[in-house]
Formats: sequence, structure tokens, C-alpha cells
Amino acid sequence: MKISLIGSGNVATHLAQALNQHFAIVQIFSQNLVHAEQLAGLVGAHAINDVSQLEAVDVYIVAVSDRAIESMADQLAPYVQHALVLHTSGSVDIDVLKNASTHTGVLYPLQTFSKAKQVDFAQVPLLLEVAIESDREKLQHIASTLSTRIYHYSSAQRRSLHLAAVIACNFSNYLYTLANDYLDEQQVDFDLLKPLIVETAAKISHHAPHSVQTGPAVRGDLAVLDKHFDMLTDKAELQQLYELMSQGIINRHKA
Amino acid sequence: MKISLIGSGNVATHLAQALNQHFAIVQIFSQNLVHAEQLAGLVGAHAINDVSQLEAVDVYIVAVSDRAIESMADQLAPYVQHALVLHTSGSVDIDVLKNASTHTGVLYPLQTFSKAKQVDFAQVPLLLEVAIESDREKLQHIASTLSTRIYHYSSAQRRSLHLAAVIACNFSNYLYTLANDYLDEQQVDFDLLKPLIVETAAKISHHAPHSVQTGPAVRGDLAVLDKHFDMLTDKAELQQLYELMSQGIINRHKA
Repeated sequence: MKISLIGSGNVATHLAQALNQHFAIVQIFSQNLVHAEQLAGLVGAHAINDVSQLEAVDVYIVAVSDRAIESMADQLAPYVQHALVLHTSGSVDIDVLKNASTHTGVLYPLQTFSKAKQVDFAQVPLLLEVAIESDREKLQHIASTLSTRIYHYSSAQRRSLHLAAVIACNFSNYLYTLANDYLDEQQVDFDLLKPLIVETAAKISHHAPHSVQTGPAVRGDLAVLDKHFDMLTDKAELQQLYELMSQGIINRHKA
Repeated sequence: MKISLIGSGNVATHLAQALNQHFAIVQIFSQNLVHAEQLAGLVGAHAINDVSQLEAVDVYIVAVSDRAIESMADQLAPYVQHALVLHTSGSVDIDVLKNASTHTGVLYPLQTFSKAKQVDFAQVPLLLEVAIESDREKLQHIASTLSTRIYHYSSAQRRSLHLAAVIACNFSNYLYTLANDYLDEQQVDFDLLKPLIVETAAKISHHAPHSVQTGPAVRGDLAVLDKHFDMLTDKAELQQLYELMSQGIINRHKA
């Protein structure tokens, strides 16, 4: 099976190198020819910066930034018809590829990549989707050479996963920021909290999060809740958040 | 220096064993004599369940539940005058000991203890407070035999630390719960998020949390924020939280 990559960023770089163990990587396209050449050199492919130079291969993988995928697919359309065209994004629908080919799919590696850091692809969860059921086997075959952790999810499910990641990860980090800001103001060393924060996150590897909830809200300790609420009297944002989260915890554990 | 322990729970058990390496543990008081005897046996002390049997020692450590500390201190008053009386709680003021003795203090080990699990006390942060400055040296001496991580913080600072721990740890765990509940409903495996959650917490060991904030809010990606907001239309609590947290992140990074 012959594969070409559209893009030369972090995801394209890691994918091309991992796929090169099992497949022929034919061309690397990038608008920046120097970037295309750097990656092409690593995998024995040809670098191009003009889509009209694309050769016919079995699979094109569009690994560009989320907002560039759709226009890239439109540009590819005349050259990639009948091939399988994939994108690699967690938050973009499979539909945006529809102008490029009738055979489209998604190969989304759920991991943060940086160019410098080696990635053990075998441990990276891969989320797959195809527009036409008959393409599933081909995509599954490609994915199975990369990782043992393969999931078949729809675009809607990928979107839900992204939203859940924002809630569980981005918002947690914001809570750490709020705690850090507050402790700086009270001249208390934020370092003291770090082991507890790491332990809190580590615990959910082996327990459902609701089953390891601790703190005054789940204990129904109204004296502490009232005291904390008073301590935040002149901090409107923290106070509102404190009330909302505590009430949420109380409701979640009432059932 | 002679020390007696009031209490036979997790903190009392770990403290008594650690202190026994350097000091004579004279008596263990517990209302439940069997519990007192169990701990007394471990450290070569005498078990009592009647405060009037307390012998004169240099330091009494009150390691009982938060809400029992004040009434325990009142009961101790006739027997412990002139000795140093300590409690071990993060969320209780030093003042609640004032009826027991003029020499009072706090020795708060910032760690979750369970009876079964061994604790390496040398790594446990100890937060110290004294009511009278002249007692600081004695408390510092006791603490320094237990741990190298010693902090001198006021009752107000300990309270702030506790509030910050609720925000950073208890509320994070609630965010994990919300993400888990949401993904269950969307038939997406919550396990997929676990490595990201652990990595998010681990990152703050080496970076200020505000400097490693990621996600649509800090990128100012209004298209994604709007899409997520719409996805939560029939989930009032999640939607309100999403808006509050995203707005908070945007404001925090505007400066």
C-alpha cells in the first residue's frame, strides 16, 4: 500500500515515521518546501509544494491544522479521487473531506505530540472513522500496524471526547491556577499542594472518580462550606465557582 | 522529652510510631481502651481511657477528629496545665486549645494517612504554629526529628491552604466525574481521557499552572467555544460551568 502525507507538522512527522515501518511513503506535501524536504528525507519520500504534482497512491493523509483541513481537501479534489483520504483531527467532522473523494476517513491519534519527543505509537489510542463501510478494513489495517489500542468512533463521539477533555483537563488546570493565585496572595507555598493534586489525578486510574470524591461538600460538612464561602466574600469569581461546584457535588451524591 | 498521645486513629498511630524513634511515648489515651491498648503496645506506652489518669509529661498531642478537639482540650484542662498541648489538624484554629494550657501549638502533617499504609514521614510537609513564641523552638525540635519539610504557618494560612486544596483537588475530581458521566452517556470510553488527566496534573510539578493552560478558551477559539456551548444546551449545570470556567480562563490570560 502506498501512502502520501499532506502536511509536515508534529502529527505528520510522527505518523510518517511510524507508517514508514510498514508502508511506502511516496510524497510529502507542504506549502513550505523546506519543511516538506526535512520530513521527506526522514522517510525516503519526495517533497512537493504544489498539489498538482501529487502522484496516484492508495491513501492520502491530511495532517494539517484543524481550520486548514477543509480548504486543503478542496484543493486536493482533482488529484486524489478514488483514493482513501484521511484526516487526523479529533475535533473536525469527517464531512469536511467530502469534496476530495467519496472514500474518506479519520485516523485520530489521541496524544499530544511535539516534534522533539519520541512517541511510542503502540500505546497511543487511535480513533477511527470511515464514511463508507467498505473502507473500514483498509483503515483498520493501517491503524493496526501503529497501535494495539484502536477505537471506532463517530465524528459526534470524537466531538464529545474533545468536550470532555476540555472539562476534565483544561478546566482542572484552571482550578490549579486559581488555587495557586489564591495561595500566592495568602503567602502560602503552592508547592505544598502539588503532591495532593498529582495523587487526586492518579487515583482515577483505578477508581471511578465519583467513588473517590473527598472534601466538605461530599461529607455534607456545612460548617466548613459556610466558612469557606465567607472566606471568599471579596472574591466573586472564586465564590461563585465554589458554590456551583459544591452544590454539584452535593447533588451528584444525593442519589 | 516525654510525650503522650490523645487519640488512637490514623494520625495518632503514625505520629506515635514516628515520634517513638526519638522520644519516650508515655501514655495513649482513647475513650476506647482496646484501641488505646493496640497503639500503646506498638510504642511501649500505657493505655488509658480516663483523662484523670494522665501523668505529667512535656507534650500532649491531641490527634482526634476536628470537631472533637475543642471539647477534648476542655476535658484535659485540669491535668495538662503548663505542658505544651498540640493538635494535628489543618482546618482547626490554634485557639480551640486555649482552655487546656497557655502553651499551645499545631503540628499538622499535610498528607492523607491510612492505618494500613506505611508513611515515609521524612517526605511529609509539617505545618507548625505556636501561641507563644517561646514554644517555637521546642515544637521545631520535635518536628525536625520527623521531617525535613517544615513550614511555619498561621491558623489563617492553614485555613487558606485547606480552601485551596478543596478548589484544586476536590473540585478537579468533580470535573473528572462530570466528564465521566458525560462520556458514559455518549458511549465513549472514559479510559481514553485518563492519560491526559494524569499528564495535566503532572505538568504543574515543573510549570506554573497558568503557563501550561491549553484549550479553546486560552486560544481564543470562539468557534469551538460556541460549538461546545451548543452541545450542552440540555445540560444546564455543565453549560453554566463551561461558561464560567471559559470566561475565567479568558480573563486570566487577557492581562
